[in-house]
Amino acid sequence: MKDKATKMMHILSAKQFDRPFLESICELTDVIRRLDKTRDGLRYLKGLLSHQRAMLYFTQPSTRTFLSFQSACHILGVASSEIRDSSTSSERKGESINDSLRTFSSYVDLIIMRTPVPGLCDEIAKLLDDTPRPVPIINAGSGPDEHPTQALLDIYTLARSFRKNGGIDGKTVLMVGDLKRGRTIRSLARLLALYKDVKMIFSSPKDFSISDDLRKHLTEKGVRFEESTEFREHLKSADAIYMTRVQDEYDIAGEQKPVNYENYHLTYDCLDIIKPEAVIMHPMPRRKEIDPRIDDDRRAKYWRQERNGMWTRVALITKVLGADKNIILPEL
Amino acid sequence: MKDKATKMMHILSAKQFDRPFLESICELTDVIRRLDKTRDGLRYLKGLLSHQRAMLYFTQPSTRTFLSFQSACHILGVASSEIRDSSTSSERKGESINDSLRTFSSYVDLIIMRTPVPGLCDEIAKLLDDTPRPVPIINAGSGPDEHPTQALLDIYTLARSFRKNGGIDGKTVLMVGDLKRGRTIRSLARLLALYKDVKMIFSSPKDFSISDDLRKHLTEKGVRFEESTEFREHLKSADAIYMTRVQDEYDIAGEQKPVNYENYHLTYDCLDIIKPEAVIMHPMPRRKEIDPRIDDDRRAKYWRQERNGMWTRVALITKVLGADKNIILPEL
Amino acid sequence: MKDKATKMMHILSAKQFDRPFLESICELTDVIRRLDKTRDGLRYLKGLLSHQRAMLYFTQPSTRTFLSFQSACHILGVASSEIRDSSTSSERKGESINDSLRTFSSYVDLIIMRTPVPGLCDEIAKLLDDTPRPVPIINAGSGPDEHPTQALLDIYTLARSFRKNGGIDGKTVLMVGDLKRGRTIRSLARLLALYKDVKMIFSSPKDFSISDDLRKHLTEKGVRFEESTEFREHLKSADAIYMTRVQDEYDIAGEQKPVNYENYHLTYDCLDIIKPEAVIMHPMPRRKEIDPRIDDDRRAKYWRQERNGMWTRVALITKVLGADKNIILPEL
Repeated sequence: MKDKATKMMHILSAKQFDRPFLESICELTDVIRRLDKTRDGLRYLKGLLSHQRAMLYFTQPSTRTFLSFQSACHILGVASSEIRDSSTSSERKGESINDSLRTFSSYVDLIIMRTPVPGLCDEIAKLLDDTPRPVPIINAGSGPDEHPTQALLDIYTLARSFRKNGGIDGKTVLMVGDLKRGRTIRSLARLLALYKDVKMIFSSPKDFSISDDLRKHLTEKGVRFEESTEFREHLKSADAIYMTRVQDEYDIAGEQKPVNYENYHLTYDCLDIIKPEAVIMHPMPRRKEIDPRIDDDRRAKYWRQERNGMWTRVALITKVLGADKNIILPEL
Repeated sequence: MKDKATKMMHILSAKQFDRPFLESICELTDVIRRLDKTRDGLRYLKGLLSHQRAMLYFTQPSTRTFLSFQSACHILGVASSEIRDSSTSSERKGESINDSLRTFSSYVDLIIMRTPVPGLCDEIAKLLDDTPRPVPIINAGSGPDEHPTQALLDIYTLARSFRKNGGIDGKTVLMVGDLKRGRTIRSLARLLALYKDVKMIFSSPKDFSISDDLRKHLTEKGVRFEESTEFREHLKSADAIYMTRVQDEYDIAGEQKPVNYENYHLTYDCLDIIKPEAVIMHPMPRRKEIDPRIDDDRRAKYWRQERNGMWTRVALITKVLGADKNIILPEL
Repeated sequence: MKDKATKMMHILSAKQFDRPFLESICELTDVIRRLDKTRDGLRYLKGLLSHQRAMLYFTQPSTRTFLSFQSACHILGVASSEIRDSSTSSERKGESINDSLRTFSSYVDLIIMRTPVPGLCDEIAKLLDDTPRPVPIINAGSGPDEHPTQALLDIYTLARSFRKNGGIDGKTVLMVGDLKRGRTIRSLARLLALYKDVKMIFSSPKDFSISDDLRKHLTEKGVRFEESTEFREHLKSADAIYMTRVQDEYDIAGEQKPVNYENYHLTYDCLDIIKPEAVIMHPMPRRKEIDPRIDDDRRAKYWRQERNGMWTRVALITKVLGADKNIILPEL
């Protein structure tokens, strides 16, 4: 039992990824996207895990991440069940969350979990590891805490955008917006620190700068970074511009002063300033951070980034369920 | 890109159907129903599009149409995702409907869309056509506006009911009920006008007669039609009797005077009046428009009509996704 | 039509099961669990009914039973649709429940039905039997009335726990808790009465003893049983201990006096009293009826019991849809 549990691969935090892992996910994703080009390739993918079942346990609403994971399951032929409302019958009947999740685990081979409760994924992973039939957990976002698969898709998008341009190493990445509460930025910065000579510029309103723990982590790792309340002046030097929105769903009414975000919006005229080979990213959904007219510019990568999210999740699921070794290019 | 967009087939309005299109859908549906008779035929269908994914975007509730389309996807092996509540997280996060639907499109190969907003399907189809990866849109009902697949299944049901009796050409079709607000009648009448020598009789309370634009259209096309506040006196001459219910979900409270609909109900004794070869139809759900004892009469086609809805949608999806050429009869 | 209807197998009540049926379900379930051990076995199962479609009509909430049935459908490749809210659009549009279910039946090959309305499953089964295209109904719980598949999984769990120990015949089964309103106990007791020399002990607070009809039935069948307000004193003699929770979701506010249930909880120290080969069961969800530290004891079978629920439902679906003859052990 213990032996089995040790071999179980949970995806709980971006902190568990090292560079070889990131590179293997990028390579897997590349092959999967090649397979997507043909009907035969798609059918091969659909057969890979068609004997397996996943539960999408999403008690924190997220249409985008839910659909991305569900589509990843569809691509691999994995049948999926879903819980999207925490006020389900069992809980109304007084059941503990531990009992609920152990029950769900008994029906499936994988639990993909999004919850407003920080640390819950880790707790459930530990609980299941102690049972005779543990299943892997993938953290699909745990409150303001972790969102490891967002970080993966961001890395993949950067790596592929810079493929013919030396990769991520040596690049300057400008991260903009609410850097205090956005878990996306926190995870991405940590992963970028795994690459060589990356320079990060954090541009945010004064009260929304990066957290102390991230500042400390980057300093310890010897990463070059700069914090600034300016935005436009950094556009010229950035290889990647990562825009984010204000995370006001975490606001407590009345506690936060309204911030004038307009200075941190990518307006249409910015296109003249930024490098011709730069990439523009956004974890989406956006509000007014990026002018929709920018969508048609070839440097805009945020739509591709969304679709990359689906493909990297396909790659991750194959890895977690041990089917990554069967992801091979079709014979030519 | 533009070239790709031009070839994309969207199903947005019953107005886009011509007679050859209707006939090709009827023929496809016939073959599909033959395939449904055997386990091998069903398995052949299920393999046809098993590498594709559809989104059912139903922000206007409709259990019946939803299940009909979902079953059509199941029959073809198309994996389906769903949005059934417009107040989803992304929209709460301030995202535009355009951004939401472009996101959804990035995960799937087809969007089936039911919305209370007239014209939204057209707008989204146009938006997607301008992206590098457009997907087809099928309008599954857009408010009081359009419901093209309902019109398709009605035509198929009429065509097959009259198969041994000369087809739809030359028939007299009696349409009964709330003809003012029912989009079903409006679309059906337009399609029937594509057939030869069809006569239409519109029977409704005075304030619920057909709209001016339909009256004008039929007049321009030289279609024979008659409007009447009588109902029973027309039963004798009708080849098809199409009953509808009052569309009071579109009522604004207090604005509409209550109408005595009882005069427009098909009661059990009507069976003695109507032709022995007539067909009785209803888009369902019904209230009291048709006595349930009529269900057992062989002229009652409304249950078959519902199942036909599923089969014509199977046919339509194969056409939109380019698999119609693979719908072939099994070797005998 | 009538002929077809006669052959349709509905699963409406635990009362319809006889011992040969129970044994055939147990044997089928055994083979299915053997097939589950290998990828090839799972793929064989998934192909068995992949041309069929089921509707999960769950207008009474039940996450656990829903997921168990949905997973059973996934295992067999049966595509499933769901209705989980009775206030759906058609019903809002004034449709009768009979019309709704006849409509749903036209899209699928099987309806799995959970409803708060006693007798509704029987009524719908009868209605469908009179149509040209009846489909089987499986009752997945009908209010305080029937829950035949819970009874099946309980019997399977008992039979397999006692496999090397003479089977269910001759065993002493202690049933504990709210025996008045728990349909689980009622159905299980009736099925246990089909086995030889079973002794039942019913342990409950005074006002929650078994119902008169069950008492009468057991007496007529000549079953040995005992009723008691004591709990701990019976632990020593029990081969199976079946714990249940108070069914207070059926309480009418203010009508029921609060009961001190603590005397009917299986506490950790009970493990020292009960037989070394005894089995501890619970239909789940639990509240405080069983100390979670008991989960790790090898006599605790309630987690296995949940997974058995999924497997017996797989077996039942194959039987109802006529695929049970194809459930065969892979060649060795």
